[in-house]
Amino acid sequence: MNEFDLIAEIKARAPVGSGVVLGIDDDAAVLQPSPAMQLVATTDNLVGGRHFVDAGDDRAAPEEIGHLALAVNLSDLAAMGATPRWCLVTLTLPEADPAWLRAFLDGFLPLAAEHDCALAGGNIARGPLNIGVTALGEVPAAEFATRSGARPGQRIAVTGTLGDAAAGLKLGKAAGGALRARLLKPVPRIAAGRELAGIAKAMIDISDGLLADLAHLTGELGAEIRCDRLPTSSALAEAVPEPRERWPLQFSGGDYELLALVAEESELPATVGGIELTEIGRITASGEIVCLDAGGNVVEAAGSGWDHFD
Amino acid sequence: MNEFDLIAEIKARAPVGSGVVLGIDDDAAVLQPSPAMQLVATTDNLVGGRHFVDAGDDRAAPEEIGHLALAVNLSDLAAMGATPRWCLVTLTLPEADPAWLRAFLDGFLPLAAEHDCALAGGNIARGPLNIGVTALGEVPAAEFATRSGARPGQRIAVTGTLGDAAAGLKLGKAAGGALRARLLKPVPRIAAGRELAGIAKAMIDISDGLLADLAHLTGELGAEIRCDRLPTSSALAEAVPEPRERWPLQFSGGDYELLALVAEESELPATVGGIELTEIGRITASGEIVCLDAGGNVVEAAGSGWDHFD
Repeated sequence: MNEFDLIAEIKARAPVGSGVVLGIDDDAAVLQPSPAMQLVATTDNLVGGRHFVDAGDDRAAPEEIGHLALAVNLSDLAAMGATPRWCLVTLTLPEADPAWLRAFLDGFLPLAAEHDCALAGGNIARGPLNIGVTALGEVPAAEFATRSGARPGQRIAVTGTLGDAAAGLKLGKAAGGALRARLLKPVPRIAAGRELAGIAKAMIDISDGLLADLAHLTGELGAEIRCDRLPTSSALAEAVPEPRERWPLQFSGGDYELLALVAEESELPATVGGIELTEIGRITASGEIVCLDAGGNVVEAAGSGWDHFD
Repeated sequence: MNEFDLIAEIKARAPVGSGVVLGIDDDAAVLQPSPAMQLVATTDNLVGGRHFVDAGDDRAAPEEIGHLALAVNLSDLAAMGATPRWCLVTLTLPEADPAWLRAFLDGFLPLAAEHDCALAGGNIARGPLNIGVTALGEVPAAEFATRSGARPGQRIAVTGTLGDAAAGLKLGKAAGGALRARLLKPVPRIAAGRELAGIAKAMIDISDGLLADLAHLTGELGAEIRCDRLPTSSALAEAVPEPRERWPLQFSGGDYELLALVAEESELPATVGGIELTEIGRITASGEIVCLDAGGNVVEAAGSGWDHFD
């Protein structure tokens, strides 16, 4: 199999999506933007052995890689309040392995279909495993959410539950299916992001961990996080019953939930886009992020983050 | 230096381009499409040791990699007749090396500026060297050129000169500066592409070699190429004086010129976008691409192509 056979396989399986004037198989894709919408563009890539295990018993399945590569990009669109439209994928593969490609598409295409995000083009090359995805979405003009806009007093709200992905990573195969799924098949919060964009003063998706990503929102300001309010799945509560052992996982996991700042005077909806929304703290002017337990005591949270060059 | 320091460097140097509503430093870029235009999107990546030499005396300089990574994508936009608007870049780097990054930007940003193609976002990760670029352009609705549309009798035209890049590759450091520049600093034919889109029935850029890329245009049809008419730079004529030794280089080089099919009854302009346009043959119904010398004898051209998995 050569490059062109692989592309033919992909083309045969990727449905022609809405707004795709010209899709896979030409020099570039031609896409029809919607009137009065702005384009939202993000790109992210997954490196073998870095963003997923690529050797040994615990190696990620190509289906998981396919899902994850798209999900992390859709999550970025969600954090802007955008609706996915199109995506492009670059596959750097050690060999032209059609079985690997089919399994990759088994993970990638259903998630793309679920969000009407048409695979419109891409590129294949040989080299150490590296999967790049560019996702393009749309948002009504000027209705997107940014990372800036934090002010003291704002409520800090998070979708879904925190800590599952980190527990899935830490416990490995010992983790239950629910925790592993949160690690390997994160769910981009597209509908929640659209709804939150209408009320949030700032928003980000939690890819590097709650505290690391919150720091992108607070900037020079600070925050007070109430650890006892961190939303916790029943799977995590069962796997790690002691709250103080859970908190570090909840501070640092890449759960791909949305973290939003909402004005003090606003009431938080209980759910957004069908997913629970939980208030976990407030923005302060202190210049630091402080984590407190139910008794108001400071919880140590040093080093809870992810640097892509650590 | 960590990921965020590198991103801050990039942000400080990348000018905020036209139509960039929100640029580097958020979850995604927000871009303002032009009314009545369609979006043209392409992505391509360069793998160390595969698309450029990454070790030894002859290793590519980061400036060259920066230029090349953007140029190959802009060339795809050119082949559609599109005008570049924005780009995103993903850098997978073995280490967070600020000197490397600065030199990369020294190659990337001037080319981006030349074409008003704003660097609007991207991603940095650690791993084996792999540079991904997504380029977004615009074209008046339905005025783009595709690869399909070949009909017997059409004239085959090519911009600029052929064979320089392959000679630069084959001769290595022995090649003169002009040939090496064609290999390492290809010029995307944006203005020529826009002009050709108005008259071409089909178009592609020559990235894999004349014969391999022509085959994408001919499909089930065929073509007759006149080797004696292949446009040849003075640098190539000097380095390889014997035409029969030049032709294989001209058949197979990644010169990033545009290859266009024009209706039989149309007259070819002498230049497009300021660059020479040369008729090199005709589309036939024969089902194969035949290369002829001035006397009408068949020139053997087997294996003149580039498969990304060879």
